Amino acid sequence: MFIQIEFQSDVPIYEQVTRQMIEGIARGEMKPGDTLPSVRSLAADLGVNMHTVNKSYHELEAKGIITIRPKSGAIISSAEARALSPEQLRQIEKNLKPVVAEGMVLGATAEQIEHMMKKVFADLQIPAEGV
Amino acid sequence: MFIQIEFQSDVPIYEQVTRQMIEGIARGEMKPGDTLPSVRSLAADLGVNMHTVNKSYHELEAKGIITIRPKSGAIISSAEARALSPEQLRQIEKNLKPVVAEGMVLGATAEQIEHMMKKVFADLQIPAEGV
Repeated sequence: MFIQIEFQSDVPIYEQVTRQMIEGIARGEMKPGDTLPSVRSLAADLGVNMHTVNKSYHELEAKGIITIRPKSGAIISSAEARALSPEQLRQIEKNLKPVVAEGMVLGATAEQIEHMMKKVFADLQIPAEGV
Repeated sequence: MFIQIEFQSDVPIYEQVTRQMIEGIARGEMKPGDTLPSVRSLAADLGVNMHTVNKSYHELEAKGIITIRPKSGAIISSAEARALSPEQLRQIEKNLKPVVAEGMVLGATAEQIEHMMKKVFADLQIPAEGV
């Protein structure tokens, strides 16, 4: 998968790496069992510090999306290993809230936000049910 | 409005202040024309550094949500002054994407994500159209 860093962005670089990894996995570009590139090689590819990539991988591990093993590297967890807990559901809701609130405050209507949601589903190739 | 800081959170404190301000405005607890508390008094109330509150206010200004005037302080912009630009719409979509992708990767279904969206709309008292 292809990761593109925006060095001018307000989003920290490790967070950009994390998000793009997650989006790549969501789109099926990487699958459970696949190994992520080594921290060293990805850092070299992207032209960023190894510490940055390392921080991103540890964030992905904390989210339960990959497991890091000393010898085999960072492996994408299986869907079963990632059974969604009520706590994770609450976390997703908590993450959605500021985004929706910001859209509203900037003047977006519920309809516009739902339309954007549809576009996001389409981009991630998720069959939207009833949206 | 009431702002609660989670000092243990991974979310930077200035970002927590920004999000809760936006959510408060979205819920109508603060309205266009209202003045935010002074940086000094909010920092004292929350027990955080003035620099932190200042950073949050400047983020709100950069988003077009408030205007900061040397004498009168930070004032919430009118809805007209916040006409949603195509760029802002793209930004909202860009913010939605990692949240939805993470939910998907963790195993949430489109239905679960839509259900969470409904809960967020309900909490922000937005009439959801066709969700």
